[in-house]
Amino acid sequence: MAGSGRLRVTVWNENVHERREESVRRIYPQGMHAPIAEGLRRELGEHVTVRVATLDEPEHGLTDDVLAETDVLTWWGHASHDRVADAVVERVHARVLDGMGLVALHSAHKSKIFMRLMGTTCNLRWRSDPGGEREVIWTVNPSHPIAVGVPQPIVIPHQEMYGEFFDIPPPDELVFISSFAGGEVFRGGCCFHRGAGRIFYFGPADQEFPVYHQPEIQRVIANAAAWCARVAPANDIPSTREANAQRNWYLSRD
Amino acid sequence: MAGSGRLRVTVWNENVHERREESVRRIYPQGMHAPIAEGLRRELGEHVTVRVATLDEPEHGLTDDVLAETDVLTWWGHASHDRVADAVVERVHARVLDGMGLVALHSAHKSKIFMRLMGTTCNLRWRSDPGGEREVIWTVNPSHPIAVGVPQPIVIPHQEMYGEFFDIPPPDELVFISSFAGGEVFRGGCCFHRGAGRIFYFGPADQEFPVYHQPEIQRVIANAAAWCARVAPANDIPSTREANAQRNWYLSRD
Amino acid sequence: MAGSGRLRVTVWNENVHERREESVRRIYPQGMHAPIAEGLRRELGEHVTVRVATLDEPEHGLTDDVLAETDVLTWWGHASHDRVADAVVERVHARVLDGMGLVALHSAHKSKIFMRLMGTTCNLRWRSDPGGEREVIWTVNPSHPIAVGVPQPIVIPHQEMYGEFFDIPPPDELVFISSFAGGEVFRGGCCFHRGAGRIFYFGPADQEFPVYHQPEIQRVIANAAAWCARVAPANDIPSTREANAQRNWYLSRD
Amino acid sequence: MAGSGRLRVTVWNENVHERREESVRRIYPQGMHAPIAEGLRRELGEHVTVRVATLDEPEHGLTDDVLAETDVLTWWGHASHDRVADAVVERVHARVLDGMGLVALHSAHKSKIFMRLMGTTCNLRWRSDPGGEREVIWTVNPSHPIAVGVPQPIVIPHQEMYGEFFDIPPPDELVFISSFAGGEVFRGGCCFHRGAGRIFYFGPADQEFPVYHQPEIQRVIANAAAWCARVAPANDIPSTREANAQRNWYLSRD
Repeated sequence: MAGSGRLRVTVWNENVHERREESVRRIYPQGMHAPIAEGLRRELGEHVTVRVATLDEPEHGLTDDVLAETDVLTWWGHASHDRVADAVVERVHARVLDGMGLVALHSAHKSKIFMRLMGTTCNLRWRSDPGGEREVIWTVNPSHPIAVGVPQPIVIPHQEMYGEFFDIPPPDELVFISSFAGGEVFRGGCCFHRGAGRIFYFGPADQEFPVYHQPEIQRVIANAAAWCARVAPANDIPSTREANAQRNWYLSRD
Repeated sequence: MAGSGRLRVTVWNENVHERREESVRRIYPQGMHAPIAEGLRRELGEHVTVRVATLDEPEHGLTDDVLAETDVLTWWGHASHDRVADAVVERVHARVLDGMGLVALHSAHKSKIFMRLMGTTCNLRWRSDPGGEREVIWTVNPSHPIAVGVPQPIVIPHQEMYGEFFDIPPPDELVFISSFAGGEVFRGGCCFHRGAGRIFYFGPADQEFPVYHQPEIQRVIANAAAWCARVAPANDIPSTREANAQRNWYLSRD
Repeated sequence: MAGSGRLRVTVWNENVHERREESVRRIYPQGMHAPIAEGLRRELGEHVTVRVATLDEPEHGLTDDVLAETDVLTWWGHASHDRVADAVVERVHARVLDGMGLVALHSAHKSKIFMRLMGTTCNLRWRSDPGGEREVIWTVNPSHPIAVGVPQPIVIPHQEMYGEFFDIPPPDELVFISSFAGGEVFRGGCCFHRGAGRIFYFGPADQEFPVYHQPEIQRVIANAAAWCARVAPANDIPSTREANAQRNWYLSRD
Repeated sequence: MAGSGRLRVTVWNENVHERREESVRRIYPQGMHAPIAEGLRRELGEHVTVRVATLDEPEHGLTDDVLAETDVLTWWGHASHDRVADAVVERVHARVLDGMGLVALHSAHKSKIFMRLMGTTCNLRWRSDPGGEREVIWTVNPSHPIAVGVPQPIVIPHQEMYGEFFDIPPPDELVFISSFAGGEVFRGGCCFHRGAGRIFYFGPADQEFPVYHQPEIQRVIANAAAWCARVAPANDIPSTREANAQRNWYLSRD
């Protein structure tokens, strides 16, 4: 945070599905950015200022001025990756390397900016069943700042499957791994260091499911924003013992 | 391989369950080391010589001479970790740091030698149901030598659950991640570099299930032995595309 | 920090050279722990409380109570590694895995606790000339919290040479690399994650040279203590551009 | 190696300095690619076939057919990075992700293909004095296949300085670190895994100095080609003890 004393987050959303698909609008009537921004405000309180930017704004809302005042950018895109202007991608890319954090969400794995930073195809295995399927998110790095206060595991009742092989560079830090009801696994919480910037990829969530309304998911995104900006929330030091306390955890399979 | 032209593997087994439990003896009448050794011979053929050593032999069969002639040691132990003499552990430890490979199998996560090398508790979450549960092993590093020729995924019908958090140092290379029917995940194929030695931890398999008779599992162990000894089997370069070719893979849940 | 609101650091020193060698006493009349503690207090101010413990105290000053109230332990030892009781080593080891930070300084590379956590020999190349030689410490990770506010490079006029190969596990994060006048290099600033604990190894400094009086070195140790405790000092986000700004930096070789 | 039984290396060189600067032509009368190719042939013998390609050839000599028959591509460029066609860069990029190895040499750090794969600026500190300065290359991973048979250290009498901060992603494996007479350090031997491809960056050597004629440098490039293609040369397992055997190594400073 450049001297402001507050973490300045810009929540970017292509905001396309929400406007053209009734099923999505029902879940996210004010756009997916709304619960993402809400969660950041609830979790980080007075320590954060949140701004929203979307694809249809001039320069997609990501002018030099906006980026200069952004400590962390969260990114959700899917249907319109190609409509993001290359000049804006280069600008965001330069700003990340210069120290801005980036939280890439779900289908942002195929966004221009994420692929530009990774250098790989970022392809993955996926399956989209109507109704979705259960995703269970496990912390494999319980003392990582992004895992602070996060239940072990997080259960998402209905979600699109994203699975391995996920063609990313070996993550510099691996925080979460998911399993899906179909049996797949996914490295869904990955940290990367590029230039002076920190990047976090987080697998949830698809536009078809109300995952961004889930408080645990909002908590992870808030933790990730703080981590990307090198801000440590005041928390007790976590314990690896707690992470495995519940040895006989078993998902109900009714 | 120290000039011999052949990969020299010593298969170590505590060989306790097999002798005192009828249920185990039925699965492994000649000890778990038998199918492990057989798999190595089948996969590596004339390129390997395999020797077996067990807990009850003098110095557990791991004398200075044996270790000097061993390129890679595989280790299975569970019931009798405490009976392994500290002097032998120190000897094996020194030999690993000096360049011998170590393939630690399943419950070897709590063996003295593995914990000595890792420096952590190596605790994990586990559950042992009668009959076990389905484990699905996914390759997250398809171009890794240990994954060559391995199906994506490997399915083990019945296995004991090992899950996260697994208290190991961050693996230097992560090759396999498993899911279990109960919903857990496990970093079950991990590479570590310590001194001049290479170490591979592989999650399968429990004494109660015939997992070491499964050819894919034997293949992984053979690949791991070759990798630990820096021997590359002659194989085509793998492709990340193949690893995700079957996008709609779905486990039957009947 | 467990709720106290303050970072609680225990500075441990074997305090042997300072008492028996006149040359060392002249440099560190109150023991090496004195300038280390001073630097922590100056850099972290009201955010830190510092306690000192030494080898000759009962249980080396590291009772269960002391460790329970310690967020980060710094460790300097050399002449008397063997005199550290195994029971205390096991206690510190367990506490690190449970979340306490450890900053291992210079010859602590061969301390029981550091070797216990690493699992390797921790041997290195070294040379001790009377008068020492110039060490130059370069940041290779300019956005790392431990590098914040640290000049690029730090120059230590007179220091004992520690060089590669340094037999440690591959560091989870590499922050500093040193060169020595003799031409050697050394990974002298290394981060490790073990259990819930964070460990930082820092190469400077030998008892024969006044390195712990150098403010830049004190700054690194303070940063490391904060990082080990997951406390981020309020600082501007660093820039990789600044790290290379001075392209024609050239050491005077007069 | 795709079934051929031979490692197929394509040595790419922009071949510009050699033709327009007399000082370079004297050192590399047949182009820098000549000693690079020679070294590969001498070190790998019958196990390798080497092809050369240069900037001025149609499609820079890197057609689909050539790439399809290339297991490892070595790349040297400097003056004419911008003249490399984007379409060829995209083709090479796709081929690397599909499993071809890439050995990026010296000023290739700013080549389009290397920057494309890294996702960062790849900037570094540098200094070019007439006459150059001494570079000393240390192995920090003595059991790595790329370090096999390489002296500890390699000394290059005259070389351009490349120093930190080098703005690359954290290397997946770090093999060599250099020091320079001016006091700088450089992570000059770095491995990256991207898609199914292996990438090695190697710092030496500048066009103004005869470094590619140096057998140790040729050995590293041959080892790197073998490693990138997952071919292990038949060698004894190295020892970390040897790596530090010569404890009182000291560069003559006459």
